[in-house]
Amino acid sequence: MKILVGYDGSNQSKGALELARKHALAFSAKIYVVTSLFGEKETTPQEVEAAEEGLEYARNSLTDAGIDVETHLLIRGVAPGEDLVQFARENNVDQIVVGVKKVSPVGKLIFGSNARHVILNAPCPVLSVR
Amino acid sequence: MKILVGYDGSNQSKGALELARKHALAFSAKIYVVTSLFGEKETTPQEVEAAEEGLEYARNSLTDAGIDVETHLLIRGVAPGEDLVQFARENNVDQIVVGVKKVSPVGKLIFGSNARHVILNAPCPVLSVR
Repeated sequence: MKILVGYDGSNQSKGALELARKHALAFSAKIYVVTSLFGEKETTPQEVEAAEEGLEYARNSLTDAGIDVETHLLIRGVAPGEDLVQFARENNVDQIVVGVKKVSPVGKLIFGSNARHVILNAPCPVLSVR
Repeated sequence: MKILVGYDGSNQSKGALELARKHALAFSAKIYVVTSLFGEKETTPQEVEAAEEGLEYARNSLTDAGIDVETHLLIRGVAPGEDLVQFARENNVDQIVVGVKKVSPVGKLIFGSNARHVILNAPCPVLSVR
């Protein structure tokens, strides 16, 4: 079994990583930790460096738990939600774990557009964590 | 561990049930299968009967797999999404499994309002299946 977790260093994505860890242990699954940056002028070298450090942190925390893990930094000019769905298809992923951002500028509950895209378009079940 | 699955007899909710079964086996979890009807004038006796039959089917398919299961028919005047979230709180559920309806009257991807409500308001992670 393959579990994909979207990781951007936020507290929500740390929650997603922790949840992926539990599920990987229960299912004896491999974890793909993926950070997606848009690239081109929208992405700074500092962001790339921060992403690499984040992935290193994620990799270490999972290998310490004895989990088979791959980390991927995707910079291919697409939004993170699309990137995760595409990666899931390319790698025959069985489950995606994402943090769901709850934005409420006027007190309304709304989805982060990336989580929304992943839940509606994923080729597999999606585990979301607030 | 406790897994709650929203079940309304639809193909999507059958997918959710099947997924809950896999997760219950991996986590040695108990499953609560819940059907929510609004009640009062909005719910016919035929709907109640169909819901009871659906829950019986769900219960049998899970007990056959050796899983500890409870079924609940909730008729308490609230929408299914709200009902599931409330039930999850009342019973300290660890994970909810729901089918995500993809409605696209004009080709747009949108959430079923119940799945959306559950994902945004659940007290625990939510596993969604298309």
